[in-house]
Amino acid sequence: MSPILQKDDRYNILFEPVDIGPVRTKNRFYQVPHCTGMGHLRPRAESALREIKAKGGWGVVSTQETEIHPSSDLSPFPEQRIWDTKDIPALRMMTEAIHAHGALAAIQLTHSGHHSPNLYSRTPPLSPIDQSVDFIYPKQARKMSKTDIKNLRLWHRKAALNAKAAGFDIIYVYAGHGMTLAQHFILPEYNNRSDEYGGSLENRIRLTRELLEETKDAVGDTCAVAFRFAVDELKGKDGMQSHEEGRAVIEMLSELPDLWDVNLSDWSNDSQSARFEPNEGYQVPFVEFVKGVTSKPVVGVGRLTSPDLMTSLIKNQTLDLIGAARPSIADPYLPNKIAEGRIDEIRECIGCNICVSSDNLGVPIRCTQNPTIGEEWRRGWHPEIIKPRVNKKRALVVGAGPSGLECAMQLTRRNYDVILSEQSDYIGGRVLFESGLKGLSSWKRVSDFRINEIRQKTNIDVYTQSIVTPELVSELEISNIFLATGCHWRSDGIGRSNRQGITGLKNINVLTPTEAINYQYSPEESIVVYDDDQGYLAGVIADHLSSAGHSITFVTPASVVSPWTQHTLEQVRVQASLLNQNVKIVPNKTIFNANNGVLNARCMYTNRTSNIECTTLILVTERIPDTLLYAQLKEIMKSENNINLQHIELIGDALAPGLIADAIYSGHLAAENFEEPEIHIQQALYAREITSLI
Amino acid sequence: MSPILQKDDRYNILFEPVDIGPVRTKNRFYQVPHCTGMGHLRPRAESALREIKAKGGWGVVSTQETEIHPSSDLSPFPEQRIWDTKDIPALRMMTEAIHAHGALAAIQLTHSGHHSPNLYSRTPPLSPIDQSVDFIYPKQARKMSKTDIKNLRLWHRKAALNAKAAGFDIIYVYAGHGMTLAQHFILPEYNNRSDEYGGSLENRIRLTRELLEETKDAVGDTCAVAFRFAVDELKGKDGMQSHEEGRAVIEMLSELPDLWDVNLSDWSNDSQSARFEPNEGYQVPFVEFVKGVTSKPVVGVGRLTSPDLMTSLIKNQTLDLIGAARPSIADPYLPNKIAEGRIDEIRECIGCNICVSSDNLGVPIRCTQNPTIGEEWRRGWHPEIIKPRVNKKRALVVGAGPSGLECAMQLTRRNYDVILSEQSDYIGGRVLFESGLKGLSSWKRVSDFRINEIRQKTNIDVYTQSIVTPELVSELEISNIFLATGCHWRSDGIGRSNRQGITGLKNINVLTPTEAINYQYSPEESIVVYDDDQGYLAGVIADHLSSAGHSITFVTPASVVSPWTQHTLEQVRVQASLLNQNVKIVPNKTIFNANNGVLNARCMYTNRTSNIECTTLILVTERIPDTLLYAQLKEIMKSENNINLQHIELIGDALAPGLIADAIYSGHLAAENFEEPEIHIQQALYAREITSLI
Repeated sequence: MSPILQKDDRYNILFEPVDIGPVRTKNRFYQVPHCTGMGHLRPRAESALREIKAKGGWGVVSTQETEIHPSSDLSPFPEQRIWDTKDIPALRMMTEAIHAHGALAAIQLTHSGHHSPNLYSRTPPLSPIDQSVDFIYPKQARKMSKTDIKNLRLWHRKAALNAKAAGFDIIYVYAGHGMTLAQHFILPEYNNRSDEYGGSLENRIRLTRELLEETKDAVGDTCAVAFRFAVDELKGKDGMQSHEEGRAVIEMLSELPDLWDVNLSDWSNDSQSARFEPNEGYQVPFVEFVKGVTSKPVVGVGRLTSPDLMTSLIKNQTLDLIGAARPSIADPYLPNKIAEGRIDEIRECIGCNICVSSDNLGVPIRCTQNPTIGEEWRRGWHPEIIKPRVNKKRALVVGAGPSGLECAMQLTRRNYDVILSEQSDYIGGRVLFESGLKGLSSWKRVSDFRINEIRQKTNIDVYTQSIVTPELVSELEISNIFLATGCHWRSDGIGRSNRQGITGLKNINVLTPTEAINYQYSPEESIVVYDDDQGYLAGVIADHLSSAGHSITFVTPASVVSPWTQHTLEQVRVQASLLNQNVKIVPNKTIFNANNGVLNARCMYTNRTSNIECTTLILVTERIPDTLLYAQLKEIMKSENNINLQHIELIGDALAPGLIADAIYSGHLAAENFEEPEIHIQQALYAREITSLI
Repeated sequence: MSPILQKDDRYNILFEPVDIGPVRTKNRFYQVPHCTGMGHLRPRAESALREIKAKGGWGVVSTQETEIHPSSDLSPFPEQRIWDTKDIPALRMMTEAIHAHGALAAIQLTHSGHHSPNLYSRTPPLSPIDQSVDFIYPKQARKMSKTDIKNLRLWHRKAALNAKAAGFDIIYVYAGHGMTLAQHFILPEYNNRSDEYGGSLENRIRLTRELLEETKDAVGDTCAVAFRFAVDELKGKDGMQSHEEGRAVIEMLSELPDLWDVNLSDWSNDSQSARFEPNEGYQVPFVEFVKGVTSKPVVGVGRLTSPDLMTSLIKNQTLDLIGAARPSIADPYLPNKIAEGRIDEIRECIGCNICVSSDNLGVPIRCTQNPTIGEEWRRGWHPEIIKPRVNKKRALVVGAGPSGLECAMQLTRRNYDVILSEQSDYIGGRVLFESGLKGLSSWKRVSDFRINEIRQKTNIDVYTQSIVTPELVSELEISNIFLATGCHWRSDGIGRSNRQGITGLKNINVLTPTEAINYQYSPEESIVVYDDDQGYLAGVIADHLSSAGHSITFVTPASVVSPWTQHTLEQVRVQASLLNQNVKIVPNKTIFNANNGVLNARCMYTNRTSNIECTTLILVTERIPDTLLYAQLKEIMKSENNINLQHIELIGDALAPGLIADAIYSGHLAAENFEEPEIHIQQALYAREITSLI
């Protein structure tokens, strides 16, 4: 918030107020509903997270999809809930936190239909037709009767009234992501009813129309009624298309909602990762027609982080409001930064979908770029502000990968004098390596953002090609050292499915992931990528090398390629990409031995052995933390004549290899906890929300 | 509790008290720790469930594995938690409920090591060595330092003291199921340390010994200290074996714990389903040596439901205490029934592992045999007692499958006069069909139990070969009708992956699951089992037919056979069984067309088409509820001249096809709710535990 910075007038349009039915948002920054893995289970954490968005300048802050009835029960996933008045206090806590900073609060009322298996409530799921639940469970939803439809409308109305009582300003009807009953009624795939709710499009949108009308009738005097609608399913003519029925729906309901929130379906299409959709604003071609069909304000999304693009979308009359889920997670202060002319301080979303993965796992949201998201309540973290230094003055951070960069940056924010030392020629560590792989170039934003901030600081010195030894530490007379020394990939085959390692590896050419990328392969090579990590990296490497023209066999003990990427909504695209490049996939096999030109593998089910042709084996299994310097310094610290070393701490992959998000978080945690009283650290570690006993 | 019934003296030995360290259990019935999907998230439900066990006569009632520290965080799975004193009130509520009925309360303190990915706490998982977390996430646990080990011991000691403060009588140290740090240290697979905690067995059990000693020191004055230990991993010499190190561990620690709770590892071996391990007492051969090695009492498990076997295990000095998890879920009153001479009233566990599935899904426990489990708090249900009838006197139940049987049985308990009508020759419905399939014979207990009870009632008439029509209903002058008319399998190919159905089916021989079993296949037939249900049934049918000598191709849009069975811990055994019988498995394919002798399939990833040879296609896709009679009666009810029909209700698969457990639950729910005020029904539907805001 340096006083010399000012808003660029070019962006003034983004800060105009917009009327949405009976309410008015102060600007065009609209945080659309997104999940957090907190919801009704963690109301204080949810509230604190939404409050940060309001503080950061978003004109509208939405909570996540909100179950309106026990027949729409998404347990074990903790979405939001408004089954009855018992949920109001938690929701009111959130709306008050949002209102305190001048933002509007929005709620997305949801009946999930056959998408909710009702594993807690045990009531039969509802659907326009008899069909399987959208969950691997041999259980079906039942076709709704007319009475069921009437009840649904009553539940929705009651939920709208309760939402108004909880203080929400904008109340959604929701037909998107393939996940809601209103949408299921609209789509012929799920609706072959012969009554007035099926058949023609007019009939199929009847339920939506009723929900919109009844919501307006119930709460429209003081609340805006928004409609979130997926205009296209990216299925071609097998599904909704934005130039066919997608457009027709909007034409038919054009003036009914107070706001159109338009996007793509299903979730994997709406929240496409940068790996498979690198373009910001990728939803524009599908939704740009909407403003031509309605006079109501329109909000759209598509990983929008550039104020120039935002401005042009408004000026071109493509959108009225700039919707954001992921960009608002990566940078809750994005609107304020634009307002204050601090464009280069925007922490841009990298499109990695780690945020999505946490919701898919039913745990609080995480972000690679913003380690403070989800930690607002538990740890009191803030994306922009960190406590000042206490007594100590200097710190050395060894290693300029993601955890070292984050730790060093935060220490400079705390006003320590920092030395950041990197042994290689370049800053960025694994981020440099991974962002060089096919589809991951946006990941470089992780190091770019931090390098940019560090460059502007006077209290940090950065050294590359610098090997830190105990002797150097002693010379520097630095007492406080953070070791972000990283890790290296194993080359012995030890991994998830095989703790003994692969025998006979001397018989073939073995490469680690880092070696594999720049290796000069000869044309006659049989290259096997072996994935006993089962994360994302082996799939990326196979894709990268295959795209470079190499013929690849992908062997994994898992049943699918990169099973972890199911959580980031990428798995189908990952495996399709390999198959489309004719990568040979060998699932369900663990490799235990290598011979000349042949690997011996064992079936994960039967233990039957088989052979796989191979001359070069790329092992993506486990990683070994690089902790030599840490061990050396610890020894010195323990010795009686140590007069210098006070704080030695491993961070990032050197502490425990994980995702880049884990490394950033680890670096941030270390910087936050430095000089913090142990009792505070412990309190935060144990902090949790617990179930009421009364 | 008929007064003429008395305990059979043969079983007296089961009701002897047993001293366990400083405490004494009143009998030998010991409910070992098992998960419920409730834990710290649903403390009142957990407490009510455990209380029912105590009421039912179990001498010891244990809660589930209990996290002792944020570094052992199993989120999103709601196990039990004793991170600090904040958890004591919920735990004390449970121990008081258990004590109120004369039982001892036990708690299994757990540090999960690398089995807990710490997705909430975000602290790096701990392990004897650097290795991947036991969860598909590219994240590793870090090798514990000596300081970490000291801390772990302090956490365990503190948890033991807090457990004592919460009122527990028996406090566990836990080394089982492949899920705990104490066990990871014992197993060479996870421990190649070179310090005093690795190497020799003496070193590898050092941590366990310390935990046992320190727990005794902390709470041993008033609490017994139990040790749960997996003596065998069923991996042969690649793992722990009961005649090798399994025995050695017990010899070395023999007198240290107050109680030995011995079983198999991992969880899928301990909780083997009846499908793959039909024998009650299957763990006996592995644990029978234990009593020869220690003077301390020994508890063992293995789906024990027969009082004769239990008695012989005690008399033969195989065990001192009869451990049970699943049998105590299927019948919480098992001990009381033996005590009261009501052996034939025992609701025997069928070994289906639906209970396990609910924990694996993070939702409250369910049971096929006992629909009341998990509903004690929410609905006030009791496995033995149901409210008496109100005003009405008679009811007709149409269909004697699982939901009809349960509904009719419970209505007779409520003292209604019941007619149960079944159109086929036999009672049991789908239970009869499914229990005739390979591995599922124990499932027949579902109908056997209910038929046995109904046979002894005077207020029910059962008719087979009886077709109920609206005219018959009118003749019978019955006003209240429960329609358990079931469902039938689709034969058009509509299913999860294909809502249009399969074209060209007239070109080949199509069979539904029920038709497939008794069909006379000719030797030259190419039989394809197509699983677009993705539950368990298609896998069972393929296994059944393959065992009968037929050559089978198994096609599924899923990546594995029967993915649902991952939740019942059976998937690996299911797929291995098919592969070992040379069933050809074609994953990731949806079938869209049939030609003469050939199916056309499409890859789920690439949409590429391929052909699969087939002359007979067995379709396991979706089911169509049979609701004709319901529709007819509803019409009559609506007509103005209806003077008779008052209550018409669909239940079970006729309402919404699901598991047998769902059908039983549906029948039970209908019987419980009959004549209940609507407001009570609604209260139960909305009942849930919510998070404290203070």
